[in-house]
Amino acid sequence: MPIVEAHILEGYGPDDKKRLTSALTDAIRFVVPAPDEAITVMLHEYPPENYARGGEQRTPAPALPDPAKLVRAYLDAMEARDLETARSMLAPEFSMTFPGTGPMTTLAELLDWAKDRYRSVAKTYEAVEAFHSEGAAVVYTRGTLSGEWPDGTPFSGIRFIDRFAIRDGRITQQDVWNDIAEVRAQ
Amino acid sequence: MPIVEAHILEGYGPDDKKRLTSALTDAIRFVVPAPDEAITVMLHEYPPENYARGGEQRTPAPALPDPAKLVRAYLDAMEARDLETARSMLAPEFSMTFPGTGPMTTLAELLDWAKDRYRSVAKTYEAVEAFHSEGAAVVYTRGTLSGEWPDGTPFSGIRFIDRFAIRDGRITQQDVWNDIAEVRAQ
Amino acid sequence: MPIVEAHILEGYGPDDKKRLTSALTDAIRFVVPAPDEAITVMLHEYPPENYARGGEQRTPAPALPDPAKLVRAYLDAMEARDLETARSMLAPEFSMTFPGTGPMTTLAELLDWAKDRYRSVAKTYEAVEAFHSEGAAVVYTRGTLSGEWPDGTPFSGIRFIDRFAIRDGRITQQDVWNDIAEVRAQ
Amino acid sequence: MPIVEAHILEGYGPDDKKRLTSALTDAIRFVVPAPDEAITVMLHEYPPENYARGGEQRTPAPALPDPAKLVRAYLDAMEARDLETARSMLAPEFSMTFPGTGPMTTLAELLDWAKDRYRSVAKTYEAVEAFHSEGAAVVYTRGTLSGEWPDGTPFSGIRFIDRFAIRDGRITQQDVWNDIAEVRAQ
Amino acid sequence: MPIVEAHILEGYGPDDKKRLTSALTDAIRFVVPAPDEAITVMLHEYPPENYARGGEQRTPAPALPDPAKLVRAYLDAMEARDLETARSMLAPEFSMTFPGTGPMTTLAELLDWAKDRYRSVAKTYEAVEAFHSEGAAVVYTRGTLSGEWPDGTPFSGIRFIDRFAIRDGRITQQDVWNDIAEVRAQ
Amino acid sequence: MPIVEAHILEGYGPDDKKRLTSALTDAIRFVVPAPDEAITVMLHEYPPENYARGGEQRTPAPALPDPAKLVRAYLDAMEARDLETARSMLAPEFSMTFPGTGPMTTLAELLDWAKDRYRSVAKTYEAVEAFHSEGAAVVYTRGTLSGEWPDGTPFSGIRFIDRFAIRDGRITQQDVWNDIAEVRAQ
Repeated sequence: MPIVEAHILEGYGPDDKKRLTSALTDAIRFVVPAPDEAITVMLHEYPPENYARGGEQRTPAPALPDPAKLVRAYLDAMEARDLETARSMLAPEFSMTFPGTGPMTTLAELLDWAKDRYRSVAKTYEAVEAFHSEGAAVVYTRGTLSGEWPDGTPFSGIRFIDRFAIRDGRITQQDVWNDIAEVRAQ
Repeated sequence: MPIVEAHILEGYGPDDKKRLTSALTDAIRFVVPAPDEAITVMLHEYPPENYARGGEQRTPAPALPDPAKLVRAYLDAMEARDLETARSMLAPEFSMTFPGTGPMTTLAELLDWAKDRYRSVAKTYEAVEAFHSEGAAVVYTRGTLSGEWPDGTPFSGIRFIDRFAIRDGRITQQDVWNDIAEVRAQ
Repeated sequence: MPIVEAHILEGYGPDDKKRLTSALTDAIRFVVPAPDEAITVMLHEYPPENYARGGEQRTPAPALPDPAKLVRAYLDAMEARDLETARSMLAPEFSMTFPGTGPMTTLAELLDWAKDRYRSVAKTYEAVEAFHSEGAAVVYTRGTLSGEWPDGTPFSGIRFIDRFAIRDGRITQQDVWNDIAEVRAQ
Repeated sequence: MPIVEAHILEGYGPDDKKRLTSALTDAIRFVVPAPDEAITVMLHEYPPENYARGGEQRTPAPALPDPAKLVRAYLDAMEARDLETARSMLAPEFSMTFPGTGPMTTLAELLDWAKDRYRSVAKTYEAVEAFHSEGAAVVYTRGTLSGEWPDGTPFSGIRFIDRFAIRDGRITQQDVWNDIAEVRAQ
Repeated sequence: MPIVEAHILEGYGPDDKKRLTSALTDAIRFVVPAPDEAITVMLHEYPPENYARGGEQRTPAPALPDPAKLVRAYLDAMEARDLETARSMLAPEFSMTFPGTGPMTTLAELLDWAKDRYRSVAKTYEAVEAFHSEGAAVVYTRGTLSGEWPDGTPFSGIRFIDRFAIRDGRITQQDVWNDIAEVRAQ
Repeated sequence: MPIVEAHILEGYGPDDKKRLTSALTDAIRFVVPAPDEAITVMLHEYPPENYARGGEQRTPAPALPDPAKLVRAYLDAMEARDLETARSMLAPEFSMTFPGTGPMTTLAELLDWAKDRYRSVAKTYEAVEAFHSEGAAVVYTRGTLSGEWPDGTPFSGIRFIDRFAIRDGRITQQDVWNDIAEVRAQ
């Protein structure tokens, strides 16, 4: 039964609003045991001249990019070894940790580390979860890895999960866990 | 600058409201590039006689439990090997997957699987993230593992991440990834 | 899906609010093809100090009486020939019209007219409808009449409908239609 | 002093909104002893992308037709003996009751019943009342009948009242009361 | 932190809305010890068909003119001795009081009074304050006077304050205080 | 017809709310040509747990004192020569200007300046106007002065106007204009 009204400045697109109403619906459901269809969200939009803070009109900043799409584009670029595109999505303070590595800050480090681990790898995605927490957008992707070991033997079905933090539309952190070592040890 | 008004029935406690206002604030920040302090959330509460759907008054259901607390209590019970308490938090359809295992449905299976892996293990938590997505509460906990290998050698600092799904106040799913195999292989 | 917020002063009782939320729900359904359960009504109540018109605080007038209950009490009093009680519910400008009569203004006239028509009569109610229209509350009651003709023969199942107008809690008008003549003519 | 805000999807026309604001005003007046001019109604309209239930955008259904106009069109068609038009306004479950008849379901039955009663009849309307109640739109029309008896003698000024129920834009029920028998018996 | 929502009919221009949001912000600050930037004002505008009082749609009256601009235009016209323009801004009941005068009702009286006081005078404005109080717009202007005494000696820096009352867009009252006599006496 | 909703934290008293609703009503009237009685103001109050900015609950600061009462108390203390009380109402940066003086910062300076001007003086107030502007509360008082000249001759009916600025509950500025010199010169 809960009803949410959000008051925003004009200027957000249909996809932005869709993400916003979904996120607000999820926020209610986080606490209130109501089925989704019992939760109504209404967006009030204001032209700048109808919205003042401190007596000053305000203009809306562009919506933040969809972090799930951003992460997917980054992962696709990495899988295609399009490093330039991938790099353009990273924040200056970017850092990543993979199984068995310390923090790495450049994609070159990552490729160097990976080359002894597998000849190629591709991801099959089972789920993507995106939300905002503690000042950053967070995206989790999980699924299974398939590819070839350095000796050319194929592998598949290896579980993985990646966690990304995104600030101001750039990826600041990537943390990766998977079962590669577990599978290799068997 | 965005402002959120949520209309709810009376009956939620201060902690419930705190979680609700935080979740609504995060929902806005997921899309709108405003700093936290520019987002205001106001809760309107209604006694049942002031809130009707379909012409019928409604009474509020109790708030859903804080899933982060539930998960922490479950993990503490597991670490203390208090299986009875842990089991009481699981849904009938509970399923869990650990590195190298298929889905397991009982804690006994888990203990059996774990006994060859380490003599003891304890978690140091670095972060807990909780949100609602696709009809379930989701909790991620991550940090490092420490303990003793089966031969008594100590270990520590091994990265882990656990994902929990919770429905109706019970854990339905636990997925675990960690670097144990990676470390053992080194 | 429509949502109604009504802002009223504090001071209305649970029954008043129930009538109000029902009436508002019906008002929406009069135009919007939504099922009842998709219509939410929320009442905001204000203590006098929180509600000002023209800069002046306002105090609420008592709710209008439920006109359906008022009419039923009047009809019960008439059936019991408790004329004093019945009369207390009539406005000074009260007027009534029955089949074949011109406007009558006193209960005495009515009784005089009725005495040749039936020895006794009682109403079985099938439906009561109450609403506000054009400055007055309107109540329709319909059902069937049973009783005894002047010669003592019993009758029953004769359709009737009464229309009442109520202003300021008093009945100002009663209009009656029924099939008595139709049945007598057969 | 009461203020009503109704939140609806975009797509309703000026006449729909007029009926809606009138109905909401009457709903308030049914309970609150405020003069009409002290009641303010404000409609908030939302484009589909600004209104979500269960996280899904909603599109508005067309407004229900004005039941008073529908009934008047039906009665005009009947008076003009335009049965095809009249029939198109009836729901499959249509049923009607006239003085001295049981329920009839076809206009043919009605005409057959009426032909011994009067050669012709026309209605002069004094009032029409329309509202929503118990899942249906209800319309009352009342006034006087004039026409010719089967022998050609004219009559006029005979009181009548018709009650109509309308669902999904079709008439489901017509109940008629009048003083014809009363007048004939005199 | 306070938030103000004002519901108005469509038809006000950007400058009107700017004055309105400023005035509402000041109204809050008059009582609530919040900094300006913590006060948000949102204007909801309604097309006439979405706004009914007493069941009747309403059309907006044009916004009142900015009284500060009106007063400034009047004072500029007076300084330029454009009496026709100045007179067009005065209400029929206009009255003015200057130091040492009783109430005067025509500009001619004023000029006659002034001619022995100074040969010319011009105003330097330090501040203008405008607000609504007790049914009228009130404007205060203050600053210093400069010009020439009747004998041609120049003067400057003489403090003045003017108070204007404006109703329905016309000046109804002007009250003037200044230090001319104080300076002359020195 | 305009309607204002102000959302504030709980904790303001009836007088604070009265001043707030009056100020909001005046703010509307400053721009919208509606009569006072057509303007409705509604205050929504929130307990701290229902109001969050930046995800944090907020507690209300005490309302600002009524500046009109503060100024009147200050003037009464001055008239009674209760300098200690008067001084307690002044901000550290207090400054005042009287006819013919430069800025003075202490009450002692004022008394010294005044002693050659009149033996005693008392104010008759005709009007007090208070509002908020540019970060300060502003109070204007005007009326007439009566008293005795240094030689004991009485005087009365001399026009004055005082302007006060108040920040954080203390008077920061007092500016005085009057016709004393004008009258003395006659």
